[in-house]
Amino acid sequence: MPSETATKRGRPGYDQQSVLLIAVDVFNRHGYDATSMGILAENLGISKSAIYHHVPSKGDLLKLALEHALGGLEAILEQPEAVTGAADARLEFVLRQTIAVLVERLPFVTLLLRLRGNTDIERDALERRRAFDHKVAALISDAREEGTLRQDIDPRTVTRLLFGTINSIVEWYKPGGSLSPERLADDVITMAFDGLHASV
Amino acid sequence: MPSETATKRGRPGYDQQSVLLIAVDVFNRHGYDATSMGILAENLGISKSAIYHHVPSKGDLLKLALEHALGGLEAILEQPEAVTGAADARLEFVLRQTIAVLVERLPFVTLLLRLRGNTDIERDALERRRAFDHKVAALISDAREEGTLRQDIDPRTVTRLLFGTINSIVEWYKPGGSLSPERLADDVITMAFDGLHASV
Repeated sequence: MPSETATKRGRPGYDQQSVLLIAVDVFNRHGYDATSMGILAENLGISKSAIYHHVPSKGDLLKLALEHALGGLEAILEQPEAVTGAADARLEFVLRQTIAVLVERLPFVTLLLRLRGNTDIERDALERRRAFDHKVAALISDAREEGTLRQDIDPRTVTRLLFGTINSIVEWYKPGGSLSPERLADDVITMAFDGLHASV
Repeated sequence: MPSETATKRGRPGYDQQSVLLIAVDVFNRHGYDATSMGILAENLGISKSAIYHHVPSKGDLLKLALEHALGGLEAILEQPEAVTGAADARLEFVLRQTIAVLVERLPFVTLLLRLRGNTDIERDALERRRAFDHKVAALISDAREEGTLRQDIDPRTVTRLLFGTINSIVEWYKPGGSLSPERLADDVITMAFDGLHASV
């Protein structure tokens, strides 16, 4: 934590990236709407004018943070493994990578998932998130048509449940603990596709 | 919506239950902390003093609402089907009933799941929720030891993923739509225990 005496001037130790990381943490704890530049300054231990040295506004911090989350997710869909091959393998690849991005950029994806859509920046981000979700939903439909996924659950329900399972990871996963991101992804894929019942 | 002219006096049409239902909706939209008695009065279309006729404080509304959610969940664990029989059947019963309570008391369970724990009332509710979760986790362990659940996923991860899947239902489920609560419960149980892969 920055010391009391540093509050009057900008901290040379901060770059935009570290300001962003602390801001995202504050947004997640207090909610974006309830966070003022004053609260941010307090948490950073710098003056309000020192923040403006790093970013022009609270909205810019939000925009940068959401770009980091969405950019990571959108890049998954452009990888060759997401584009070619059997639909169920593509789906599994995309879900694994989604979990990887979620864990690697945990506070950023948490912020994205908690958006209420009160500002244009939030609404744009929700629009991009919906576009991502739709592309994954299309993969689920493809895998169903291919015959690799069971037919007796509505694909919209499958999509909701899969995203529900994956997105809820932000609520409990602790990076650096005994459960590695790769193992977590294995476990989610195993439960969702093979089920928890012991095979007989 | 109550009419303008009714704002000065208590609405005879409101009983405590309908005040509670609207209050829970406002808490879910604005967050409990951000909701003042003034905002509640505005949403109810009655005066602040008329609210006090129904409940002594905002905290009492929260307490009543959380009791409705937690009471429903806790009652599940006392039913005979939750107490006797094979652990996997008990687990399935408890999860199905949890989904039923969640859907039937959707705004109340949503409020419970979004609690931050800033007040004693919230902390007490979170404590009861944790106790419920621990009992379900114990059922998962029992089913594992019984040999009906797969051994290759840590039971703590299984618990997190199952609750993640079920709790996320509050974020998207629309009561009264084409997906009935019973069908939803079937789909969740099918995905979680048998998996999404088509059987070959």
